[in-house]
Amino acid sequence: MTPPCIICVAITGSLPTRANNPAVPITVSEQIESTHEAFEAGASIVHAHVRNEDETPSSDPAKFAALKEGVEKHCPGMIIQFSTGGRSGAGKARGGMLPLHPDMASLSVGSNNFPTRVYENPPDLVDWLAAEMQTYEVKPEIEAFDLSHIFQAAKMHADGRINETPYVQFVMGVKNSMPVDREVFDFYIKTVKRLFGQNVPWCAAGIGAEQITLNDWAVSSGGHART
Amino acid sequence: MTPPCIICVAITGSLPTRANNPAVPITVSEQIESTHEAFEAGASIVHAHVRNEDETPSSDPAKFAALKEGVEKHCPGMIIQFSTGGRSGAGKARGGMLPLHPDMASLSVGSNNFPTRVYENPPDLVDWLAAEMQTYEVKPEIEAFDLSHIFQAAKMHADGRINETPYVQFVMGVKNSMPVDREVFDFYIKTVKRLFGQNVPWCAAGIGAEQITLNDWAVSSGGHART
Ligand SMILES: [Zn+2]
Ligand SMILES: [Zn+2]
Ligand SMILES: [Zn+2]
Ligand SMILES: [Zn+2]
Repeated sequence: MTPPCIICVAITGSLPTRANNPAVPITVSEQIESTHEAFEAGASIVHAHVRNEDETPSSDPAKFAALKEGVEKHCPGMIIQFSTGGRSGAGKARGGMLPLHPDMASLSVGSNNFPTRVYENPPDLVDWLAAEMQTYEVKPEIEAFDLSHIFQAAKMHADGRINETPYVQFVMGVKNSMPVDREVFDFYIKTVKRLFGQNVPWCAAGIGAEQITLNDWAVSSGGHART
Repeated sequence: MTPPCIICVAITGSLPTRANNPAVPITVSEQIESTHEAFEAGASIVHAHVRNEDETPSSDPAKFAALKEGVEKHCPGMIIQFSTGGRSGAGKARGGMLPLHPDMASLSVGSNNFPTRVYENPPDLVDWLAAEMQTYEVKPEIEAFDLSHIFQAAKMHADGRINETPYVQFVMGVKNSMPVDREVFDFYIKTVKRLFGQNVPWCAAGIGAEQITLNDWAVSSGGHART
């Protein structure tokens, strides 16, 4: 039997503004309602960034706390995943919401290029974020922007920096990083199975228009989807 | 017929000091003699970093000029490749020696983690280094610390930022970056052949004790070796 497909909804992301898409939820109450709709439509994980009033990315723990409280109330049983990505803050500010004990948090374990800059995840910050996740019992979702990030997650699991088997998300289609490529996608799957076991769950996310392609590939290959 | 194996000698590297290995050539005249010995032993490319008198990495164009002059005199026909790697300088200082018209220069096209820090190759710096290499007719050797770097080289070649078919070096065994892994190595080869053609030359470098493993794999798989 195939395990049911987990649908993870990324309600806001770190970058799109209302100017790009009037439907993007910005305030915490908008995010809660948007999550509620996705939950009723079948999503079981919410991947959340929070925003300032001017729509810029925020890492304010108070906003994460309000979001968590609202999602718990409106969407009982939904898995809450906070982003610790580098667009929302710098250094340890990226993990300032982990003491809120979300179920999961994203964790980047390597560095790579983004469209206009370096996505910096220095080794000491990665280790600190991973340690905070252990302290607060937060399951990391590994954001694999490149192949070596999967190996790094395996190493961190082997030496105890990550408790449970890592849940890896393949991120494809970011300019100046890994493009959307089917052979790489298949090699990613082969690699997570080799490193973490045949039945390990994994998921994939494409950027922008590529999201549909990646969801299609993921669902048809036994992975989970990000919408 | 198999093309002859190209041996590239990295005479100094950016980090080892005499305290690690008394045989490391530090001064330009020591580097020239060391290159001469490797040339007589069959090496056809020299990959060069230069050093300050205190053995710290340097990006001083005057040192590169003296090294180039000496190698041209002692090793006629040897291909001279300068490092533009980030250990020797910051920003555009990394490409300050390109006006010397070396035959080749290393080019990192993405970012990744190193043992204790981020190896930063921001997109605008990568493009500037590639443009300087076009201006001064320097062939880049792409340092692939991760899989996406091979795709980025292909994209830069396709859109004209790199003139000729990229010569890719797989770098494996750097802590916090890609480990030495045979399946990845084979996938790297498959990928360069897919992106650049079946007969594209490529090479591989392992770090420290892994160098022997990588040379063995490379030579037995039709690649070139770094010693
Ligand atoms: Zn996110
Ligand atoms: Zn509601
Ligand atoms: Zn080098
Ligand atoms: Zn000589």
